[in-house]
Amino acid sequence: MRYVRIIKPSAFDGMREVAGLVPRLVDHEVRRRQITDAARRVIVGGGLDAVTFQSVAAEAGFSVRLVQYYFGTKREFLLATHRSVMADAGARFARRWAELGEQAAPRAALRALFEELLPLDEQRREEEIVLGAFNTAAIAGQGISSEETLAAPRALLMLIGEQLKRANATSVELDAQLMVAALGGLAQGVLSGYADPGRAVELAEHILDRVLGPEIGDNGGGAD
Amino acid sequence: MRYVRIIKPSAFDGMREVAGLVPRLVDHEVRRRQITDAARRVIVGGGLDAVTFQSVAAEAGFSVRLVQYYFGTKREFLLATHRSVMADAGARFARRWAELGEQAAPRAALRALFEELLPLDEQRREEEIVLGAFNTAAIAGQGISSEETLAAPRALLMLIGEQLKRANATSVELDAQLMVAALGGLAQGVLSGYADPGRAVELAEHILDRVLGPEIGDNGGGAD
Repeated sequence: MRYVRIIKPSAFDGMREVAGLVPRLVDHEVRRRQITDAARRVIVGGGLDAVTFQSVAAEAGFSVRLVQYYFGTKREFLLATHRSVMADAGARFARRWAELGEQAAPRAALRALFEELLPLDEQRREEEIVLGAFNTAAIAGQGISSEETLAAPRALLMLIGEQLKRANATSVELDAQLMVAALGGLAQGVLSGYADPGRAVELAEHILDRVLGPEIGDNGGGAD
Repeated sequence: MRYVRIIKPSAFDGMREVAGLVPRLVDHEVRRRQITDAARRVIVGGGLDAVTFQSVAAEAGFSVRLVQYYFGTKREFLLATHRSVMADAGARFARRWAELGEQAAPRAALRALFEELLPLDEQRREEEIVLGAFNTAAIAGQGISSEETLAAPRALLMLIGEQLKRANATSVELDAQLMVAALGGLAQGVLSGYADPGRAVELAEHILDRVLGPEIGDNGGGAD
């Protein structure tokens, strides 16, 4: 692989390391992603307080300088980590909805959304822990603002609201808020052991029953 | 006030301070309460990580030794703090239900329960922040076990389940779990600014509508 000096190494002695490490063809997004992935694992292991340039660099197997090259401040890579979690979940929703097609029943679309949101496997579990840690930090006023953490529930509220409108629900806004609250509580409940994944799926279906009414017919099952 | 030496001061030099501080007539429960109240405030201000013997003693206006006299380990006073939050909420439920009387409609009993649970004033807000911090710590495996943090949702599940049975609900267990999840998500949502207190009360009523059906008659109002 060929490398290119991205900064004059004489400019700052310590930057030689960075310049040497960054290959010309490397996708900077891949590096940023490796760093935010490492930040996620640090948060899962020890909460937001465990996140430092040092801990994330060690987790990623990079030097502290490389992390600093991509993210100038801790706050910057914390927010990038938060955004990466939302982007991953958003990409999964989009894929599931594309598979279902535009004519999918609102109930099927909502079910897919709920499944992608609940911590039913290791990745979604990690995402939920990270979002929960950010929420806790925002509530405690630890440098993360509510504006940032509210982006996730607001996006979800909009997606759910659209499906409820398609289903001709009577109280779209209240029902959408109820679903976001119930799913948030349920996701945290799976993490804390209050509900196992199977029960969480059953409860997600029950939310749909309670808001849309019991499912009739055989277009996907799930009503009890 | 008269004081009594509760330990021979010669036994350990530093204990003189403790012995001098503890009046004979003081209710030890009051002291313990002052310490767990201080621990709550420290958690609200900086999360569970901010809790140390030093920070709690400073917040309570006591010496570190006095705190150590009442609670041998940090874990011990953390768990006592958690229990005190649950006890406070439990006492409020009990008082509200006593006021309502045994013949209260299940819906009215559930409404009272929800109101006492949601962070609608400073005390309930503090309680919810503390419970949330413990949940986050349990999920991150930071010395607090799920068995401890699950005590609150389990107690709530039982109380809600009893009322749903009285209301002849068709899926008591699923509905009770749904309510606990929705309320948990809603309570955290109020803290993070996702819903203001007025909206939270409206949503709590909406949960009752969705599970028990819209309210009929004039026994308390709230259906929209």
